[in-house]
Amino acid sequence: MKILVLHGPNLNMLGMREVEKYGTETLDDINNSLKKQADKSGVAIEFAQSNHEGELVDFIQNTKGNFDGIIINAAAFTHTSVALRDALLAVNLPAIEVHLSNIHAREEFREKSLIAAVCIGQISGFKSYSYNLALCAIINSLK
Amino acid sequence: MKILVLHGPNLNMLGMREVEKYGTETLDDINNSLKKQADKSGVAIEFAQSNHEGELVDFIQNTKGNFDGIIINAAAFTHTSVALRDALLAVNLPAIEVHLSNIHAREEFREKSLIAAVCIGQISGFKSYSYNLALCAIINSLK
Amino acid sequence: MKILVLHGPNLNMLGMREVEKYGTETLDDINNSLKKQADKSGVAIEFAQSNHEGELVDFIQNTKGNFDGIIINAAAFTHTSVALRDALLAVNLPAIEVHLSNIHAREEFREKSLIAAVCIGQISGFKSYSYNLALCAIINSLK
Amino acid sequence: MKILVLHGPNLNMLGMREVEKYGTETLDDINNSLKKQADKSGVAIEFAQSNHEGELVDFIQNTKGNFDGIIINAAAFTHTSVALRDALLAVNLPAIEVHLSNIHAREEFREKSLIAAVCIGQISGFKSYSYNLALCAIINSLK
Amino acid sequence: MKILVLHGPNLNMLGMREVEKYGTETLDDINNSLKKQADKSGVAIEFAQSNHEGELVDFIQNTKGNFDGIIINAAAFTHTSVALRDALLAVNLPAIEVHLSNIHAREEFREKSLIAAVCIGQISGFKSYSYNLALCAIINSLK
Amino acid sequence: MKILVLHGPNLNMLGMREVEKYGTETLDDINNSLKKQADKSGVAIEFAQSNHEGELVDFIQNTKGNFDGIIINAAAFTHTSVALRDALLAVNLPAIEVHLSNIHAREEFREKSLIAAVCIGQISGFKSYSYNLALCAIINSLK
Amino acid sequence: MKILVLHGPNLNMLGMREVEKYGTETLDDINNSLKKQADKSGVAIEFAQSNHEGELVDFIQNTKGNFDGIIINAAAFTHTSVALRDALLAVNLPAIEVHLSNIHAREEFREKSLIAAVCIGQISGFKSYSYNLALCAIINSLK
Amino acid sequence: MKILVLHGPNLNMLGMREVEKYGTETLDDINNSLKKQADKSGVAIEFAQSNHEGELVDFIQNTKGNFDGIIINAAAFTHTSVALRDALLAVNLPAIEVHLSNIHAREEFREKSLIAAVCIGQISGFKSYSYNLALCAIINSLK
Amino acid sequence: MKILVLHGPNLNMLGMREVEKYGTETLDDINNSLKKQADKSGVAIEFAQSNHEGELVDFIQNTKGNFDGIIINAAAFTHTSVALRDALLAVNLPAIEVHLSNIHAREEFREKSLIAAVCIGQISGFKSYSYNLALCAIINSLK
Amino acid sequence: MKILVLHGPNLNMLGMREVEKYGTETLDDINNSLKKQADKSGVAIEFAQSNHEGELVDFIQNTKGNFDGIIINAAAFTHTSVALRDALLAVNLPAIEVHLSNIHAREEFREKSLIAAVCIGQISGFKSYSYNLALCAIINSLK
Amino acid sequence: MKILVLHGPNLNMLGMREVEKYGTETLDDINNSLKKQADKSGVAIEFAQSNHEGELVDFIQNTKGNFDGIIINAAAFTHTSVALRDALLAVNLPAIEVHLSNIHAREEFREKSLIAAVCIGQISGFKSYSYNLALCAIINSLK
Amino acid sequence: MKILVLHGPNLNMLGMREVEKYGTETLDDINNSLKKQADKSGVAIEFAQSNHEGELVDFIQNTKGNFDGIIINAAAFTHTSVALRDALLAVNLPAIEVHLSNIHAREEFREKSLIAAVCIGQISGFKSYSYNLALCAIINSLK
Repeated sequence: MKILVLHGPNLNMLGMREVEKYGTETLDDINNSLKKQADKSGVAIEFAQSNHEGELVDFIQNTKGNFDGIIINAAAFTHTSVALRDALLAVNLPAIEVHLSNIHAREEFREKSLIAAVCIGQISGFKSYSYNLALCAIINSLK
Repeated sequence: MKILVLHGPNLNMLGMREVEKYGTETLDDINNSLKKQADKSGVAIEFAQSNHEGELVDFIQNTKGNFDGIIINAAAFTHTSVALRDALLAVNLPAIEVHLSNIHAREEFREKSLIAAVCIGQISGFKSYSYNLALCAIINSLK
Repeated sequence: MKILVLHGPNLNMLGMREVEKYGTETLDDINNSLKKQADKSGVAIEFAQSNHEGELVDFIQNTKGNFDGIIINAAAFTHTSVALRDALLAVNLPAIEVHLSNIHAREEFREKSLIAAVCIGQISGFKSYSYNLALCAIINSLK
Repeated sequence: MKILVLHGPNLNMLGMREVEKYGTETLDDINNSLKKQADKSGVAIEFAQSNHEGELVDFIQNTKGNFDGIIINAAAFTHTSVALRDALLAVNLPAIEVHLSNIHAREEFREKSLIAAVCIGQISGFKSYSYNLALCAIINSLK
Repeated sequence: MKILVLHGPNLNMLGMREVEKYGTETLDDINNSLKKQADKSGVAIEFAQSNHEGELVDFIQNTKGNFDGIIINAAAFTHTSVALRDALLAVNLPAIEVHLSNIHAREEFREKSLIAAVCIGQISGFKSYSYNLALCAIINSLK
Repeated sequence: MKILVLHGPNLNMLGMREVEKYGTETLDDINNSLKKQADKSGVAIEFAQSNHEGELVDFIQNTKGNFDGIIINAAAFTHTSVALRDALLAVNLPAIEVHLSNIHAREEFREKSLIAAVCIGQISGFKSYSYNLALCAIINSLK
Repeated sequence: MKILVLHGPNLNMLGMREVEKYGTETLDDINNSLKKQADKSGVAIEFAQSNHEGELVDFIQNTKGNFDGIIINAAAFTHTSVALRDALLAVNLPAIEVHLSNIHAREEFREKSLIAAVCIGQISGFKSYSYNLALCAIINSLK
Repeated sequence: MKILVLHGPNLNMLGMREVEKYGTETLDDINNSLKKQADKSGVAIEFAQSNHEGELVDFIQNTKGNFDGIIINAAAFTHTSVALRDALLAVNLPAIEVHLSNIHAREEFREKSLIAAVCIGQISGFKSYSYNLALCAIINSLK
Repeated sequence: MKILVLHGPNLNMLGMREVEKYGTETLDDINNSLKKQADKSGVAIEFAQSNHEGELVDFIQNTKGNFDGIIINAAAFTHTSVALRDALLAVNLPAIEVHLSNIHAREEFREKSLIAAVCIGQISGFKSYSYNLALCAIINSLK
Repeated sequence: MKILVLHGPNLNMLGMREVEKYGTETLDDINNSLKKQADKSGVAIEFAQSNHEGELVDFIQNTKGNFDGIIINAAAFTHTSVALRDALLAVNLPAIEVHLSNIHAREEFREKSLIAAVCIGQISGFKSYSYNLALCAIINSLK
Repeated sequence: MKILVLHGPNLNMLGMREVEKYGTETLDDINNSLKKQADKSGVAIEFAQSNHEGELVDFIQNTKGNFDGIIINAAAFTHTSVALRDALLAVNLPAIEVHLSNIHAREEFREKSLIAAVCIGQISGFKSYSYNLALCAIINSLK
Repeated sequence: MKILVLHGPNLNMLGMREVEKYGTETLDDINNSLKKQADKSGVAIEFAQSNHEGELVDFIQNTKGNFDGIIINAAAFTHTSVALRDALLAVNLPAIEVHLSNIHAREEFREKSLIAAVCIGQISGFKSYSYNLALCAIINSLK
């Protein structure tokens, strides 16, 4: 069982950015924490981040045949990208949508997710722990 | 540490209702599974269900001083109840919103949650496992 | 063949309330008229009324295994209750939506019915006779 | 007592058209069934169908002085014709709106009826039996 | 100088229809009054009425080469007919939109005219006198 | 019989302003033309113009007991002034709304008139001749 | 003269709940203050609170024949309950709508009151003193 | 303690205007009644009325340093004036919004108040008594 | 293989109407060009035009059993006719929607096609050549 | 080259009003700063302020023939005044729209400017320095 | 004559993706088919695909001076990219919009094309044959 | 003090693109003009342009620690990119939004800027001179 964790735009700035909102953990911290959790569960895991919508589409397309599930925090693209939605439809793998902050408690335009309808489910608001929950969930789904 | 799990209207019908959408697990199955998980984590847990918005408000009000956190699946009331939102504000405890189905992939009126903005986060779409994730999350938040 | 007739909030005030709009017939008058019609058709019929959304949900849930069809005048809850819609979905019995007044000729917010989409059909505007038509219709549907 | 039953566009195709949605009954079947019901009730009844909005307006205008009530299934024109609404206002006869399918459970644009506000009531969703209910209702109203 | 006066659906019922709103004048009364006014002004005038949108389109198309201006009370079609708008564009003659009642003081859906943007101007609310004003206006415009 | 003609903001610029849209006639030209027409009809007429919403309200209030009817081109205030609407309601005199240009063929925000619903009717699009038509109409209405 | 003061959901938490927004006064403090004011004015007064929409409907229905006026703070139900509106219509007693906070200065969904249109008036924003003003107002109205 | 009572457009017509809606009391009657109430309470009070938005802005600006509180019935400007809102923000005094009629039970455009969000509270629907309640309220607030 | 080409309202004016927008080709020119193209492809083709929505419905109904596919330029009815949509559904033949001008680059109300959802596809913007493309497409689809 | 700087309602309160938002500079400070800048650039400059929409219209009309360009901070009227827009159109001089605060980062109703479409450009958010930038811009435009 | 065919995001997955919706043809199949058709017509043709909006902008910019026309299937970017619209405007070449599926018969957000208004026309719904039609159309347009 | 000037998609085409709208100045011309202005002010300045949203995000992220302020013309991305907004939030540097054309006087979708709320201010409509004003403004802000 092999999982791709996909981080969207500006998540590479975690730990340096709006610390009061996102905390001081860096993306590496999150990835390391997920790696440990995956190892414990006997699951292979890989990570990718990009500020480029097109690259994220490429990463998703590339999961076909190479991965069994996707954890995706599309960040800003959550609300604007039909291309990511179509990419997820194209590879047709189980995917889980993750958000650090509770997108339902912020600006109105962040409430709508264009990818939600093509994912198994959404986990939103638990800071970096959202990813850990998502890893539990994807493993549970794939079983 | 003591958690209240609150189930909203029609969740008492689980296992008998729209089985293709919600599965054959009953509410007791879910509660038992959560009880085991709580025991393992050394956390006290209680359960309540009601089809009455007013009773759910009463249950929430009653957490004040008696519980440390709330897991709530408000079901149909998610989309219509300002009273539940105000009750959660009134007791001011950490609360997590849970949904069996992915509410962002159903009828448009199910997409908007009136309680989301007063909860820590939302977990939606993982069938009964949504509750297990929420229990992890609330324990993690309370630590 | 056994039918439940469900009356929503404020219908217990019929005959005393806005007489120019709803007439002087009481709810008992309506129930008696329906009882006679049911007897003639050899159909068992029962009645319930509540001002509590939760009780109406309970009544609907209780039809499962005990009734063959539902006639429901959800009154004010028609326009605000997702819980009643979910309850009707949960028991999955043929249901007919009834209104005394023509809800399509009143305030705009009364035009939208949240339960219409889960009922066989809607009969609206014939005063108490709406119920008699609904009884004909449910018998016809169950045959 | 004399009733006009008015059928709107494409209803002449009944029995040949979207059989899974509208059934195999033809318009003649419906008219025959209504004729029998009217005969039993000692009521005169006539029928007209047209795919032309203007002809339907003509039919309605012609009821003035010749008929006592109207049963109208305006079909597609239900949602687009102000002219039919004005015609019904102009003749000022009791009219009942009928639909084979439940218009409140279909595409959103079918939910709004432009003629509802000038009719006594609406019966929607009972296939051909909607007409039989309407005949009962118009007789009841005219008494 | 030759003018066509075009009356839309249900205007043939004038004098018999909603008398309190439209008065007791018949369409013939209006036409006679316009005929006199036209004679005085040395202007040729013709009249047409139809309940059929298509016929009104035909009448408008036929003005090309035969008339110098159009006075049109599209009645109900004012709010629903793109075809009349396109016909007026196609013949490209000066046209004046007329309404007996003040369409800006009635139901909201009557406020929007689909033909207004392709007419010189709109005269609304002066009962039959709206037509007399329009005849003044079209003569004034054609000079 | 005494009529007040009320001109709203920027109409004092007529003849100097957007000549291609409003023509070269000045406000004095319009008033003179109306004066002649009024004289012929044996009707007293007065004129007022203001760029100040409050002054226009004052002018309207002052008609009470001093005038029999009002012709008003509220210009820009047509679309923004509830105060003018309330003033017209307060004096309760017959009033006619006039526009030089066809407000239904311009920017969308010009389509809605806040005063239309409290006037007898609206005449829009005939340049200065709109006023002459309005004078005919108010005289006709007052008779 | 006998007045019912009706408190909606979560108002039983006053003094313990969002103290910075609602102050430290309890519901008993408010009721006592109103009792004193009523005594001074020689008016009988009773109090009821419920978190249950249905019970509030029951309380309102019960005023018929037993009370002369109603003061109602429907709290969260203000924005969601058609049933309360219908109940007020059914008993047809003078009613005054009260709010502790200024509902016009909060979340947008709190701005719309479903019961406002069936009350004499609305008093909003004066903390507990809103009730005292309402008592003055209802006495003034009933005189 | 010194209070300014500010009356908006057309309120000078009170007693002569739409008597069935606003009663026969004149603005002087209201001011006299308020003067007596203020005298009893040992509070200084002054009055101003204008049909001019700009003058009302001037009056509000002038309260700075001269008054302790404002009672404002902005009438028609309630729904259209951002300038009054900004003026109230600029002087930053406690202000209370008053309406004679219940603005929440009239045309939809009267429901929205642009100044509500910068006032302490709103009192709406009690005819002239709304002002008396407001005077109580402002005194209570200033204490 | 037999195709019906259906032309909607005002298309009979082609070549005489808004020449700068639609060109100088007449409807006969278009039909002749299509006839030649059909002959070359060995396909039978017939043509019909009407300004009457009802006649267009009749034409569509008549294709049942007589034609294998439909090319339809519904012109103005594209945006207003549910009846044409229902007729296309009723005969259930492959249909292609054609427009001379690019309806997505004109007035906003022309952007929405009520028949698009029941056609195979839409070809819009290529002047008369749109029809030639549609003929290619329908032949390709029927193969 | 002569420029008019026009200040809208409540800007006379600058320096005394919402100091945290608008700073302590007074309107005189701004005018003095602009005067110096204009002198340096060899440009004549004049200033006007009013709380009255009508006076601002007068000021704009008066620029015709007397000024070469306009700098306007319409303040609250930015969002509500069609009259100012029409006045700017009427004089047809180059105009620049200025705002102290960033209107695109405040309440939603402040985002829309009714005058923007008739100005060269908009400068928003730089406190008093917005005016200095506007003076640079208007000089640059007039060259 | 030289044409660029531009394929947007996820079109490289054709033949492997949602086969029931898009068929088994690959992008190479489509390009080969177009190449053959172009060869027959004596037209040069090139192809490009990208999942990156920026690259598609680059491709379009690069057509300036190098190509005579563009066929573009912007896929997901159709509904979200103003940048592609601006790029098409910038190069100002004839362009044709193509879609495999009928975008007017899918999710509502797919109905709106941001590039439609800057293209000659749109061909939508004919699977890969949409491209062949577009090639005919662009050649026809360039002649 | 060091400033980054960021140019969005299609701005590299300046001088070659829609010359009547954007003028003949190239991006190099603008950069050179800004360079000179910066030199005079003793400020360091750098330039970047991209058609790729992701690269623009990268450029913004890279300002952290390397620049003191940002001037950004996001062009088409202004209206569609949440990612740029989040990037600006992440680096938390003073930023100024610039537009060549007046975005408030063009298509409606260009009126809304997703980045405005996170910038100091917006300068729109002064062609290339917008940049010069922005450079003045950013220097003024940083002092």
